[in-house]
Amino acid sequence: MNPRLFSFLGKQNGPWRVQRIVPVTGESLPDVSHIELVAGSPDVPSVWALRGVTSNERYVERSEKTQLLAVQQGLGRPEASCAALIPIRKNAGWWALTQDERRHIFEAQSHHNAIGMDYLPPIARRLHHCRDLPEDSPFDFLTWFEFAPEHATAFDNLLARLRATPEWGYVEREVEIRLERA
Amino acid sequence: MNPRLFSFLGKQNGPWRVQRIVPVTGESLPDVSHIELVAGSPDVPSVWALRGVTSNERYVERSEKTQLLAVQQGLGRPEASCAALIPIRKNAGWWALTQDERRHIFEAQSHHNAIGMDYLPPIARRLHHCRDLPEDSPFDFLTWFEFAPEHATAFDNLLARLRATPEWGYVEREVEIRLERA
Repeated sequence: MNPRLFSFLGKQNGPWRVQRIVPVTGESLPDVSHIELVAGSPDVPSVWALRGVTSNERYVERSEKTQLLAVQQGLGRPEASCAALIPIRKNAGWWALTQDERRHIFEAQSHHNAIGMDYLPPIARRLHHCRDLPEDSPFDFLTWFEFAPEHATAFDNLLARLRATPEWGYVEREVEIRLERA
Repeated sequence: MNPRLFSFLGKQNGPWRVQRIVPVTGESLPDVSHIELVAGSPDVPSVWALRGVTSNERYVERSEKTQLLAVQQGLGRPEASCAALIPIRKNAGWWALTQDERRHIFEAQSHHNAIGMDYLPPIARRLHHCRDLPEDSPFDFLTWFEFAPEHATAFDNLLARLRATPEWGYVEREVEIRLERA
């Protein structure tokens, strides 16, 4: 099994309690009361399961990565009792762009990395890719965030800024699942 | 199922007869007499199976893509009775590089696209990604080539030029399987 594979299981019990599921763009996900994040793709009962693979960065340049590595935090901090799972699907127009065009929209126009940097170290983040899985995945990316309750407003602000960017014009489906430790 | 998923089945019969399997770098693949290329990931008997997903280009810029689209040919041309399957794995050093560093090695230093352009339209090519599959794939890429017999020497030349590039310094496993229509 690929050690970079992770699954998000929508369930009626588990370590993260759902506060709300918001269909930001397009169809929502079936209602569940809890989410469990597990390594791999175990065959356990769940209402729904989304899986993705962490991978090499697609847009980050060396100067940006150096900055990120200096301040970003890992998952599992004891104080990070809030979390969010945000599955996103981009449209065919995005995927038809070339690397230079996507990078231009991502950073020169949308300042995606720069915006994210403003919320480090409080907001920890892990990106999972699903577009190139063998199954026909309903999403391209699953991003998981963890933060302390006092940073929840900052997290709202981060989401609002990203959603106002030109890059988000290519998002055709987005669901925001907000969670707290059960 | 992802419509971009394809499998290469190493078998003792099938539409492509193996001429030779050359372990270019690292371990070879088990000997088989035929290869079958199929859509998806069907559960059919085979000596080995490698699967990969076609995806958006990672390094090609718009000006290069415009040139490529103008001359590149699809698979299945009647005259293209020769083929090659080249599975490749790059080392951890490659995957730890950032996007700008990988692009710099790929094109500025190695002229990967530019070299490939010299062999269009005769050599048709399709790239399949396997690094981000759920299984722990032995390769990162599976590239499939098709060409007419009179272009076999040009194809050898293409491989020799690519293998002499700085980019190939990151290749830790490469197997070359040369084929003809059965």
